[in-house]
Amino acid sequence: MIDAKTEQHRGLFPALANKAYFNYGGQGPLSSLALEAIANAYQFIQQAGPFSGAVNDWIDLQTDRMRSAIASQLGVAKQAIALTEDVTVGCNIALWGLDWSAGDHILITDCEHPGIVAAVKELQRRFGIEVSICSLVETLNQGDPVTAIIQHLRPSTRLVVLSHILWNTGQVLPLAEIATACKNVSDARILVDAAQSVGVLPLNLSEIAIDFYAFTGHKWWCGPEGLGGLYVAPDALESLHPTSIGWRGIVTDSSGNPIRWHSDARRYEVATSAYPLMAGLGEAIALQEQWGSAQQRYQQIQHLSRYLWQRLSELPDIKCLHTSPPAAGLVSFQVKGMPHNQFVQLLERQNCFIRTIRFPDCVRACVHYFTLPSEIDRLIDAIASAIASKQNF
Amino acid sequence: MIDAKTEQHRGLFPALANKAYFNYGGQGPLSSLALEAIANAYQFIQQAGPFSGAVNDWIDLQTDRMRSAIASQLGVAKQAIALTEDVTVGCNIALWGLDWSAGDHILITDCEHPGIVAAVKELQRRFGIEVSICSLVETLNQGDPVTAIIQHLRPSTRLVVLSHILWNTGQVLPLAEIATACKNVSDARILVDAAQSVGVLPLNLSEIAIDFYAFTGHKWWCGPEGLGGLYVAPDALESLHPTSIGWRGIVTDSSGNPIRWHSDARRYEVATSAYPLMAGLGEAIALQEQWGSAQQRYQQIQHLSRYLWQRLSELPDIKCLHTSPPAAGLVSFQVKGMPHNQFVQLLERQNCFIRTIRFPDCVRACVHYFTLPSEIDRLIDAIASAIASKQNF
Repeated sequence: MIDAKTEQHRGLFPALANKAYFNYGGQGPLSSLALEAIANAYQFIQQAGPFSGAVNDWIDLQTDRMRSAIASQLGVAKQAIALTEDVTVGCNIALWGLDWSAGDHILITDCEHPGIVAAVKELQRRFGIEVSICSLVETLNQGDPVTAIIQHLRPSTRLVVLSHILWNTGQVLPLAEIATACKNVSDARILVDAAQSVGVLPLNLSEIAIDFYAFTGHKWWCGPEGLGGLYVAPDALESLHPTSIGWRGIVTDSSGNPIRWHSDARRYEVATSAYPLMAGLGEAIALQEQWGSAQQRYQQIQHLSRYLWQRLSELPDIKCLHTSPPAAGLVSFQVKGMPHNQFVQLLERQNCFIRTIRFPDCVRACVHYFTLPSEIDRLIDAIASAIASKQNF
Repeated sequence: MIDAKTEQHRGLFPALANKAYFNYGGQGPLSSLALEAIANAYQFIQQAGPFSGAVNDWIDLQTDRMRSAIASQLGVAKQAIALTEDVTVGCNIALWGLDWSAGDHILITDCEHPGIVAAVKELQRRFGIEVSICSLVETLNQGDPVTAIIQHLRPSTRLVVLSHILWNTGQVLPLAEIATACKNVSDARILVDAAQSVGVLPLNLSEIAIDFYAFTGHKWWCGPEGLGGLYVAPDALESLHPTSIGWRGIVTDSSGNPIRWHSDARRYEVATSAYPLMAGLGEAIALQEQWGSAQQRYQQIQHLSRYLWQRLSELPDIKCLHTSPPAAGLVSFQVKGMPHNQFVQLLERQNCFIRTIRFPDCVRACVHYFTLPSEIDRLIDAIASAIASKQNF
């Protein structure tokens, strides 16, 4: 399975040199190419500016290219992409931008990230809207997430909030099916937290009936932290009002008065960002494409997560949440007889990196397309030895 | 006036090597120390993570130190500082976080940045609030900005929006006096756009009766673009509700459910940011302190802006907006007989960097404490030759 191409590819990532890394769902490593691109961008800005006509032109060009590169990965037009600081900022744009009225209903799943849950709770308090929670954690191995979601829709439901891949259990939701089923019976908008799906799943969002898809570049795309985005479907643009507002989103007249929003999703961008990061994310996406197509990368992720899942399933005192091989790169499991945070710390001291999840109480190991089977073996050995040593705890 | 200390100091800024730079109000240059600190932070994160217990601990430490370093410059407690992507994001947090009701009134000056004006206009549309504009551009050389503001207050005024230093004319507002006058007659909160004052004025915000003070690190502090913050006065904290919400602002229970906001201004922070930038801004602030105290730096800025203003005043066809020496580093002026954008482009081709302002129609040149009189002379020569050549336009 390991070819020269993958070995060479891994050699470009300094972070992979000294550890067995399984936290792609937290943050992906930066390649030396991405790091150099960021450093070069800083140098260019200092040489030509930092604030100048030349740098302003460069920023316009870079942001346009960044939106194009992202749009191409998502299967949408660049006009539908707004750049944001992270996935959570993208979710907030969608959450706050709808014209809420008291009594409106939001449906959210029980597997969303605490930050998004907190935002929805604050919307509830502020605008007197109703929130209900649909349990998907139960549908990991049985039942149907489509039915679970549809049966919670109400006539007053204006927004459905869900993830494409659940960050805790690693379940891949049948998003196209869910979206079509929702739109068939409801006018609700659909906001997708794509933190764990962008850079993993081959995407063609223009064929899926969702409205908002918020993502980050620093996880599975292996770009720098601090740069992500939001896809806004063309027919949702006019109903989503900007709420974090600045000079990047507006058009001004000759006296500098704001007269309208940009005609596209740039209207949701705010103001000065860490522009050099765009060079890093551009390199990161290009490098993944160079290894293989989105389909090829996803197949390799599935291949490797199946291997990790199989090996974990053979270990005593380890219980994988999935009862069959996971459909993506997140493999969550429970360790009997040892607190999970101590377990994770113990592994980190052996340079094996995984993380805890609080709900459901478990740990999560992620494989990417360039994870090595030997790296998985090393993790399995470390886990086995941690379990063997657990009398010490 | 030029000492060895300043020459040596300037040598640390790559951007200053090849140009005469007067766009500090747009973006300050990065020192090689700040650039190295950013690069080192990227390296550390890759070496120890990128996602790991070690890196998470490092981020907690760095964000805490960053808030402390900023708080120290502002004369406030670190608990009152939230880190943001830029000054505009900070303004939006204050603008959207008040519980608006129809009929509430916002007072904004006619010298605010278009991005902030656009945000206020959208609040007006969304919540049915009233907005009035107070003219300060007329008070640059005569009249009293305190009176101008106070006479526009209404019983329904809930927020006053103004800048500490006006980005267009360079006027320094008597903020303490304005704040005290407002609070004497009104319950209105006061939001200050500090884009042009942080890194210029010696500050002791705990002695000024303002509520919110939004700033950026990438202008006069000469930090990297993409990192700024918001000061929230302790007694304004509970009345300002978070609106851009994520994991950084909340406390969760053992099952990961959000149960409350952080007790301090961290509640306004959202999610993953470009953490390496903090190392850069930390270095930038430390370097300024090394050159001299805030008072010494401000005196030098005043000294140099007076010199620039005097020399400009001697030129034909140049009209400075100020009729007396400016109180800070922004020197705005008009050029007769040549479109300002062509004038700025012509200077940039000679490696002299200034910018246009649309209202009032003018150009703006900024001096920092490390600007050289000889650099000002070079700008004056370039301007004189541009004016002499203007028959070509």
